Amino acid sequence: MSKVPVMEIFGPTIQGEGMVVGQKTMFVRTAGCDYSCSWCDSSFTWDGSGKHLIVQMTAEEIWSELKRLGGNGFSFVTISGGNPALLRNLESLIAVLKENDIKIGVETQGSKWQEWLHEIDELTISPKPPSSGMITDFSVLSDIIRKLKNRNSEQHISLKIVVFNQADYEYAKQVHLRYPTIPFYLQVGNDEITSTDNPQLISHLLEKYGVLIDRVIADEQLRDVKVLPQLHALVWGNKRGV
Amino acid sequence: MSKVPVMEIFGPTIQGEGMVVGQKTMFVRTAGCDYSCSWCDSSFTWDGSGKHLIVQMTAEEIWSELKRLGGNGFSFVTISGGNPALLRNLESLIAVLKENDIKIGVETQGSKWQEWLHEIDELTISPKPPSSGMITDFSVLSDIIRKLKNRNSEQHISLKIVVFNQADYEYAKQVHLRYPTIPFYLQVGNDEITSTDNPQLISHLLEKYGVLIDRVIADEQLRDVKVLPQLHALVWGNKRGV
Ligand code: SF4
Ligand code: SF4
Repeated sequence: MSKVPVMEIFGPTIQGEGMVVGQKTMFVRTAGCDYSCSWCDSSFTWDGSGKHLIVQMTAEEIWSELKRLGGNGFSFVTISGGNPALLRNLESLIAVLKENDIKIGVETQGSKWQEWLHEIDELTISPKPPSSGMITDFSVLSDIIRKLKNRNSEQHISLKIVVFNQADYEYAKQVHLRYPTIPFYLQVGNDEITSTDNPQLISHLLEKYGVLIDRVIADEQLRDVKVLPQLHALVWGNKRGV
Repeated sequence: MSKVPVMEIFGPTIQGEGMVVGQKTMFVRTAGCDYSCSWCDSSFTWDGSGKHLIVQMTAEEIWSELKRLGGNGFSFVTISGGNPALLRNLESLIAVLKENDIKIGVETQGSKWQEWLHEIDELTISPKPPSSGMITDFSVLSDIIRKLKNRNSEQHISLKIVVFNQADYEYAKQVHLRYPTIPFYLQVGNDEITSTDNPQLISHLLEKYGVLIDRVIADEQLRDVKVLPQLHALVWGNKRGV
């Protein structure tokens, strides 16, 4: 059977961001990313530092591990990365999850297409703003969005942009105005991903959240948008695997 | 023209809780409630203390005030209370908002039916748990949910329970298991609604949020649920009108 490189499997926990914020979920984190964002909080998935953690697993093995950890207490699995859309053979995991009546969430930056993206119940596309150091290929992104919209399935899709600075904010606005019918999320960037001083981190992130809200409130071009913090950073700081 | 008792109109701001958490929105707060929850954070809408703030307004007058405050910078209006479902003639406001392509959110405790509930795009039904001192009439609640489901319109509905203690948690679980197909939200109760010490309030509420998450994580009977804090209390403390 075909295998996928798995970095970590954990949960149940709560989805801390985006369109299903607050959702009780298990996480499967795959290895590998085609980007290298300057502020990536999962760089161990692609920079070599987590190489020893990678396990090649079949869909059945991943499902067994999910059941071992989560028992009967979950109905939702989030596949994150890295960029899970690098892996064509995630389709077998998706099939197993569907057989077991599990809803599936995925986050990807919108740089790669896979047919299985049609099967994801809650699909977050999160193009990376200038502060990441990455350049968005809008022809690829538009093609992905067009494919998803054409199929017009039951699935929910959304766009999410993390904002660190003014240039990111302008980029976010461009993305929203380019795809105005796609539900749109702005998220506060965490620029202190190595901080272990949680009270300080929390007050810093909430202050930045307030600033982003104020900017959106004053901006007549951003109307039908949602502005969210990362809840997991507020609850657990920069701890990994929660 | 028929008028409705309006307590306050404000925005644009961000919806701090529930199914449209993070949404940029205007707020119209109506006066009056058929409940008197022990921990009500809007008791000025019904306990007489805000009587001098009530203005009887037509739908057109409310719309003018929304435009004056929000200009062209909003596409969503939240009608809150008190209990807006006490007011049959909110239907004229709803008609004006729809004519202007505005999406509408409402929160009500599920104690009163109005035909216009069918017209609400994002409808949160928030039955009150034991700590409120109120008793849920489940026959009324079930009737409301049945009516909404029968119409099977484009609208989104959800159930939201605020949890202060163990009895509230058990109540929430009962409600979810009774209506398992309705999207379900658990929210941390704010038991310090008079606190003005924001850093202390934030750390208290985040700690309680973490405890609620842990309880849900460990509970195999709560699977397809979302657990959220009140974002506005984290950003603005107990300040009113934001
Ligand atoms: S796309 Fe995501 S996982 Fe990849 S480098 Fe950027 S932030 Fe990290
Ligand atoms: S139902 Fe809502 S507005 Fe009415 S008393 Fe309870 S908390 Fe307050």
